[in-house]
Amino acid sequence: MSMVGDAGGAAPGPTRLVFGFHAVAARLRSRPGSVLELYVADGRGDARLRQLLATAGERGVRIVHLPAERLDRMLQGQRHQGVAAAVRIEAMPRHLDDVLDGVTGHPLVLALDGVQDPHNLGACLRCADAMGVHAVIAPKDRAVGITPVVEKVASGATESVPYVMVTNLARELDALKDRGLFAVGLAGEAEDGIAGQRLDGPLVLVMGAEGGGMRRLTRERCDVLVRIPMFGQVESLNVSVAAGICLYEARRQRAAREASRH
Amino acid sequence: MSMVGDAGGAAPGPTRLVFGFHAVAARLRSRPGSVLELYVADGRGDARLRQLLATAGERGVRIVHLPAERLDRMLQGQRHQGVAAAVRIEAMPRHLDDVLDGVTGHPLVLALDGVQDPHNLGACLRCADAMGVHAVIAPKDRAVGITPVVEKVASGATESVPYVMVTNLARELDALKDRGLFAVGLAGEAEDGIAGQRLDGPLVLVMGAEGGGMRRLTRERCDVLVRIPMFGQVESLNVSVAAGICLYEARRQRAAREASRH
Repeated sequence: MSMVGDAGGAAPGPTRLVFGFHAVAARLRSRPGSVLELYVADGRGDARLRQLLATAGERGVRIVHLPAERLDRMLQGQRHQGVAAAVRIEAMPRHLDDVLDGVTGHPLVLALDGVQDPHNLGACLRCADAMGVHAVIAPKDRAVGITPVVEKVASGATESVPYVMVTNLARELDALKDRGLFAVGLAGEAEDGIAGQRLDGPLVLVMGAEGGGMRRLTRERCDVLVRIPMFGQVESLNVSVAAGICLYEARRQRAAREASRH
Repeated sequence: MSMVGDAGGAAPGPTRLVFGFHAVAARLRSRPGSVLELYVADGRGDARLRQLLATAGERGVRIVHLPAERLDRMLQGQRHQGVAAAVRIEAMPRHLDDVLDGVTGHPLVLALDGVQDPHNLGACLRCADAMGVHAVIAPKDRAVGITPVVEKVASGATESVPYVMVTNLARELDALKDRGLFAVGLAGEAEDGIAGQRLDGPLVLVMGAEGGGMRRLTRERCDVLVRIPMFGQVESLNVSVAAGICLYEARRQRAAREASRH
């Protein structure tokens, strides 16, 4: 769905549909200039929507009211909550160097080795954005791209966190280590807990796929392997929850170090 | 789907279907005696499945091979990965007191005010189990019950963490506070971050719904409100990720206190 005929006529360049209340509101807030048209299903009129329409109006976005069934067809049955927007696809950085060259302070990167489920990728991107990750990287041949489902679940994070798909993840990890990043891999069978690991420097957090874990070549590139302590009967956490916990811990340690300096 | 005709004939008492590889494996591991029959779709034969069949065989579980389409019909199109099990519904504790009376050490309770999405409830239960939560509570009129989707997403946690639906959440929080639990509410607009809050004693962590947050009466029962520091553009974290982070922080503090004692 990278081209949408309905909206494509309004402006040159490739467009796509962002849908769902949160994703549309986030896009309007973060990059209003990229929103070409707002689509609203007839019959909706709550306060949240009125606020969204007011914001769109202030920013000069054309608002199109249409029957809900039409929106259903445009989005092929995805849950859109009666709101969608045609947005210009803006180029995100395609190379990790371009991202990291612009980072001030310690870089924080999340590497996902084999996350194929679009819900999980979207959830990871949402987490990564919330925790101030500078880039998420994944191997081209073992990851899902940015689909409309990823976009929806990510709640706008696909527009704020660069997602860089690389040809060779192991080689990319080597390059990050050459830049001074410490590579910490999450593995259920590791001996040491994450809280005991220093995470407050330049960091790439490496996580495996749902179920399968990291590949051997990826794992071998990690400077250290740690685990999240588990206290119950389930074998593992969802990958986005595990990412959230590790990134939170990295942020907590950075804040604690800053506080101890003053 | 609390009664399944196919399996109900084999044993007295109510049964239900557990489906998906992880949920079935977790159930076989944690409560093998409750598994009445294992259903396997024809054509599957990977190592993971052979292991599961071997385990089921050792535990005397009857194994039924059947066409995948039959399993599809039994599960009304849910993604079952070719594996399901008919299990006896065992009574989980229905009152919070029954759970907490049996807890040694500091109780850890998660209160969910308004989680209506079965995926989110399942994800919260999975997190709660992983972080050793003793019970999850939710208001009867503002929560989803344990559905097959919840069961699947929870990866077995519905069988290990008591989920107690209460008539009046605010009153239940009062009762927990009377038992000595400290009520910490998570709210995006709170001033203090979660890492600065003592979470190592008897604790009930209170979280609001997707989007809407806690109700006023729930919020007023909290001894303190805290937030997870956010560093990006998304407004909020998914409720299960937020729960995972807060519960991780509570466990981290408990472990740090234990370590400092020795």
